[in-house]
Amino acid sequence: MKYLLKIAFIGTAYSGFQAQDNAPSIQRILTVAAEKVFGCGCLVTGCSRTDSGVHALGYCATVEPLGRLPSIRTENIPRAMCSVLPEDIGVLSASEVTDSFHPRYSAKGKEYIYLIYTPAERNPFYAGRAWMRRMRAAEAVPLMRSAAAALCGTNDYRSFMAAGSSVSDTVRTVSSFSVDEDEGVIKLTVCADGFLYNMVRIMAGTLAEVGDGRISPESVGDIIAARDRSAAGMTAPACGLYLSRVFY
Amino acid sequence: MKYLLKIAFIGTAYSGFQAQDNAPSIQRILTVAAEKVFGCGCLVTGCSRTDSGVHALGYCATVEPLGRLPSIRTENIPRAMCSVLPEDIGVLSASEVTDSFHPRYSAKGKEYIYLIYTPAERNPFYAGRAWMRRMRAAEAVPLMRSAAAALCGTNDYRSFMAAGSSVSDTVRTVSSFSVDEDEGVIKLTVCADGFLYNMVRIMAGTLAEVGDGRISPESVGDIIAARDRSAAGMTAPACGLYLSRVFY
Repeated sequence: MKYLLKIAFIGTAYSGFQAQDNAPSIQRILTVAAEKVFGCGCLVTGCSRTDSGVHALGYCATVEPLGRLPSIRTENIPRAMCSVLPEDIGVLSASEVTDSFHPRYSAKGKEYIYLIYTPAERNPFYAGRAWMRRMRAAEAVPLMRSAAAALCGTNDYRSFMAAGSSVSDTVRTVSSFSVDEDEGVIKLTVCADGFLYNMVRIMAGTLAEVGDGRISPESVGDIIAARDRSAAGMTAPACGLYLSRVFY
Repeated sequence: MKYLLKIAFIGTAYSGFQAQDNAPSIQRILTVAAEKVFGCGCLVTGCSRTDSGVHALGYCATVEPLGRLPSIRTENIPRAMCSVLPEDIGVLSASEVTDSFHPRYSAKGKEYIYLIYTPAERNPFYAGRAWMRRMRAAEAVPLMRSAAAALCGTNDYRSFMAAGSSVSDTVRTVSSFSVDEDEGVIKLTVCADGFLYNMVRIMAGTLAEVGDGRISPESVGDIIAARDRSAAGMTAPACGLYLSRVFY
C-alpha cells in the first residue's frame, strides 16, 4: 500500500526535505511519525528536495508501510500523523496511490510562491516567512510584472540555475508568473513543468532588482539567452519561498 | 515630548500588554527598548490591556522619554526600536502627539479581528495564530453573518462581558461586524467605540456556536436583552484574537 500525503510545513527549523547533517530534515521527522502511526518501518519519498528554511503549503510525499496491511482508514491518516508530528509540520490530506506512482517523477508541474515584505519597518508576522527587503512596491510592481511575463515560455533557463548544479537538460516551460501586491507584501506565483536548482530564488532575486530599476524588464530576454548564471540577478533568501502546489 | 507608536506583536510568548508575574509583558519589553533608544527612563502607556496570547496588528502605545529632549528624529524611531526589540514585536510607525493625548482615553474606537481555522487537519501556519475549530464553514458562515449583524448597534453588552468584571457602564456601540471566509479560515472583523472585558472572545465563541446550529441567529436579540453572561456562548481562545486598529 502506498499513500500520497499533502503536507504543510514551516521550514525554519529544518535542513530541507532531505536528510542532512546540520539540522533535522522533514523526511526524517515524517518517517518517524509514519512508523508510529503504521506500527512498522515506512519508506517516505518526497516530490522534491527543498533548501533549508524553505516552507511548504502543499508539499507532496508518499508513505509506504513496509509491514503488514495497514489497519488505519485512509481518511484518518492526516489526523493520526498530526497527533505525532511537531507543531510546524501538518498533514493536510492523504489518498491511496498505485505502486508505480512516484511523487517526483509522476509530477506534471509545480507552483511556488515567493513573498517579499517591502515596508521599512519590521512586521513580526512576516519574520522568517518572507524576504524583508525595503522597496517602493507601487513603483516596483509594474516593472516586476513586465519582467515576470518575459520569464514565461519554453526556454533554456540555465541562467537561473545555481552554479555547480549538474543537471544537463535545462529547458523548462514556465506556464505562468504573476506578481501581486497587498499592503506592501509582494507575492510572486510561478508555475512550471519543473524547476532547476534555485530557479525560483534566482528569478525572485532578479525581479527584485528589476523592481529597484537596476535591471530593465526589457533585458530579461538577453538574460535568458546568455545561458550564464552571472547574467541574472541575486539569489533571494530561502525564507520567502513556499512550495504551494504539485500537479499530477 | 510624547510619541505615539503603532506596534505589531505575536502575543504567544507574553502575558499581555500589561505587566504580570507569569510571563514577560509587552509593556516591559517596550519600556526596556525605549530606554535604550532614548538613553533615559521612559514611560510607556498602552491603548488597552490585552489577554495573554492575544496578538496585535496595530496596537497603539505612547512613549514619553523622561530625560533631556530626544536627539533622534521621529521617523527614525521605528527602526531604532526594532533593532533592540525581540523578533516577535515590531514598531510600524511613530508620530509626535500632544502631552494631553492618551492612547486609551483619546481613542474613539477600535477594530479587532478574530480568526477561526475550520479544516479538520492542522495547518502549521495557523498554529497559535487562530482558533483551531472544526466547522463546516460553507454552512456556518451565512448563519454567523446573520448573527453578527444582530450584534451591531448601541446596546448594553453585559451578556458579552466576562463574569467578575467591575465595569458599571456596559453600553457600547458596535458599528460593524463582518464575517468572511477564505479556504476554510473564517475571519471576524468587529468595530466598536469600546469593548468590555473579553467581549470579542465571547462574541466569537457565540458566533461559532451559531455556526454549529446550537444557537440560532434569531436568538441574538434575546441574548443581548438578558444582560447575563450565561445567556451568551463560550469564550473563544485568546490565540485567534488580533487588535487590528485603534481610531483617534
